[in-house]
Amino acid sequence: MATVKPRTLSGFMELLPAPQRQFDTILQILRDTYERYGFTPLDTPVLEDAQVLLAKGGGETEKQIYRFQKGDADLAMRFDLTVPLAKYVALHYGELAFPFRRYQIAKVYRGERAQRGRFREFYQADIDVIGDGKLDVLCEAEIPSIIYHAFTQMGLTRFCIRVNNRKLLTGFYAMLGLADKAGDIMRTVDKLDKIGAENVAKILTDDVGVSAEQTKEILFFLSQKGTTDELLDSLAKYAGRNETFDQGVAELRTVTQNLADFGVPQTHFAVDLTIARGLDYYTGTVYETTLTDYPEIGSVCSGGRYDNLAEYYIDRPLPGVGISIGLTRLYYVLGEQGLLSGDLATAPCDVLVLPMTEDPAPAIRAATALREAGIRTQLYTEQKKFKAKMSYADKIGAPYCVILGEDEIAQGKLTLKNMRSGEQQLLSAAEAADAVKSALAAQTATVICEK
Amino acid sequence: MATVKPRTLSGFMELLPAPQRQFDTILQILRDTYERYGFTPLDTPVLEDAQVLLAKGGGETEKQIYRFQKGDADLAMRFDLTVPLAKYVALHYGELAFPFRRYQIAKVYRGERAQRGRFREFYQADIDVIGDGKLDVLCEAEIPSIIYHAFTQMGLTRFCIRVNNRKLLTGFYAMLGLADKAGDIMRTVDKLDKIGAENVAKILTDDVGVSAEQTKEILFFLSQKGTTDELLDSLAKYAGRNETFDQGVAELRTVTQNLADFGVPQTHFAVDLTIARGLDYYTGTVYETTLTDYPEIGSVCSGGRYDNLAEYYIDRPLPGVGISIGLTRLYYVLGEQGLLSGDLATAPCDVLVLPMTEDPAPAIRAATALREAGIRTQLYTEQKKFKAKMSYADKIGAPYCVILGEDEIAQGKLTLKNMRSGEQQLLSAAEAADAVKSALAAQTATVICEK
Repeated sequence: MATVKPRTLSGFMELLPAPQRQFDTILQILRDTYERYGFTPLDTPVLEDAQVLLAKGGGETEKQIYRFQKGDADLAMRFDLTVPLAKYVALHYGELAFPFRRYQIAKVYRGERAQRGRFREFYQADIDVIGDGKLDVLCEAEIPSIIYHAFTQMGLTRFCIRVNNRKLLTGFYAMLGLADKAGDIMRTVDKLDKIGAENVAKILTDDVGVSAEQTKEILFFLSQKGTTDELLDSLAKYAGRNETFDQGVAELRTVTQNLADFGVPQTHFAVDLTIARGLDYYTGTVYETTLTDYPEIGSVCSGGRYDNLAEYYIDRPLPGVGISIGLTRLYYVLGEQGLLSGDLATAPCDVLVLPMTEDPAPAIRAATALREAGIRTQLYTEQKKFKAKMSYADKIGAPYCVILGEDEIAQGKLTLKNMRSGEQQLLSAAEAADAVKSALAAQTATVICEK
Repeated sequence: MATVKPRTLSGFMELLPAPQRQFDTILQILRDTYERYGFTPLDTPVLEDAQVLLAKGGGETEKQIYRFQKGDADLAMRFDLTVPLAKYVALHYGELAFPFRRYQIAKVYRGERAQRGRFREFYQADIDVIGDGKLDVLCEAEIPSIIYHAFTQMGLTRFCIRVNNRKLLTGFYAMLGLADKAGDIMRTVDKLDKIGAENVAKILTDDVGVSAEQTKEILFFLSQKGTTDELLDSLAKYAGRNETFDQGVAELRTVTQNLADFGVPQTHFAVDLTIARGLDYYTGTVYETTLTDYPEIGSVCSGGRYDNLAEYYIDRPLPGVGISIGLTRLYYVLGEQGLLSGDLATAPCDVLVLPMTEDPAPAIRAATALREAGIRTQLYTEQKKFKAKMSYADKIGAPYCVILGEDEIAQGKLTLKNMRSGEQQLLSAAEAADAVKSALAAQTATVICEK
């Protein structure tokens, strides 16, 4: 007798079969994209020694961490994929080749307050390139290409990869004599989109201690818009006043001038001086990616260049550049906005084989032949009426059924039924396999469909 | 300054890049195989409400579970994929089509005593077919085909799928008037391989309370060997004495007689009357899979038919059949036995593009062209000497390098270097893409290589 009411914890996404396949399609596109760019997959443990995982300590995140004792062990579930990467690179330093390019697509855990669209268990899809001591800016220039390829493969067309450079910002604030306040200023102007220029100005003057004149200059600087070339021209006017600034502009130039060769069209790229990425961690190019029609969603793919991946674990500078996609949230908001295509094939099989005779042998042989031809084939196993069998085929969304009755068997053939058109053909197993394969190859539905 | 020594918890497998790709190849083969048979992927949470997860309670497993409090929540990490499946099917019962065929390949957690080759975090690769009230024996007959396909795809040839039927055993013990002792007897004879007939006999008579005469008859029954047909003939001699026994034999006959149509050769299959699978849970066909040359490894893929998947969650019989592969352990023992092929391509890219001029643009364009042709391509980004670049290519095991110096650029070509043979060709990017693609298509290395 049932004694416990089954439930899934709130903040934990658990999908039905068809949405799960949509989600898995996104996972597969990211895996393929990251591999296309020469990243190697890693799979670090979900559980780590809490002392190791929290070496950096402090911060908002620590409160959210799932941490517990088991025997003598002080354990914690990973809350991102960057700290485990830092640990990995430090631990296996001698066995890795640098630049070390890894991707990891895996679940991370944060015991946040439950809230609509907030998840406690969620996928991150990260790539990072780690250098040993040095890392060329060319790595930063390659990142937009990876982002562009990933989202394009999903079927998204209306998005923009926004790029800025932290050196440029740091240098600019230093020019104004605000070097020591640069961190606070960047954290504040990061909110421009959300709270507007007026409120940002108020916080800068009242809380951060920036003069009204400086605030005006900062807001003017950040308000500069235009094409990449126009912005680079505007930035050139500040040249020669601060070395860090000049270096930032040079890096930004390297990133932008190689875009076309990396296959990124200008339409999907913008220099955006307001992007700072809150973290002090970043030191060079920073990236955000926004959906053109849904700015309120915020960035769906962010990251940047940093100078020291693993300083808590190893006395050796390991600069890197990386980006991260919060996949679970992305999938959730795509669904909310109705952007997930209903045309994507999500059935567990391409062909459902329906035996219509007492002896299942001919149906089994047909299923085996289709499988050997590479077709995802389910053999229907239950002794039900024809109507119940067809209704099952509809329910799982099988695009094709193979029907094997006395007539078909007598002729050494089978009936292939296209479940969408209703069309039926009497074919050999090999012909059926070819027909299904051609139809599958002609499918063009992408996981995201803009309206 | 480094303050914490990086380490990975013992009992948690963390692989270097090349072995990780080997492991992922196995994962991909299993995904492909399970999908080929019409199973749909599920991805349930790692964390569940402890009350829900432990509804069944008790047992050895409970002590090993990672269970902890966070706020008011009593949480536990999953220790297998069957309980989460039971929860899933009970919770989403109304939204699923039955038979429901799902696969899940995911990590599970058991805080076991650390021991060589024992893991606290390990992958299970499970499939289950769940019926609503009923489930045809044809589902049980299909399972050996899935096992055969999975291991064959990995490159394994010397293995045997061993099958028995619990009804046949239960019926046989009932014949002897030992119905109430059947569970204890099965748990004991399950150890035949490990402790031998003499010790089993001793336990049966001394501890279980079976007479010497009955013990003799049990051991004779279990000692019957032979081909499938010979064994079925032997079993026929017991027919008519017990209904459950007869049903078990009939089911075994259904499983064995459809093997050939399911594409399973007799060479890789055996009826083995000694297999019982300790769990009381199983009620029909049971499966074990052993490596012919490594019997000491035990079963690498086991499972069976059960009558009630989710009785703790739902008042509705949900019979099913499933198998599970303990992947992390499998990978570990394959490595221990030297069965993992060194020929499998494990480099992060197929082609490493080496810019040899100051302007990286031609190299970027070559990399973009190769990527667009579907080739996994890494652009080497660092300003190093030629020798250092080649040594990097060797270290990551890149099968091909593309070299782009002044000469190549002047001719609008590139040099494609086969890193294994040393052969170099001057080609256009498109020609290089074709050459690499043909070479990749001709690769035949499998993940397992028997000596």
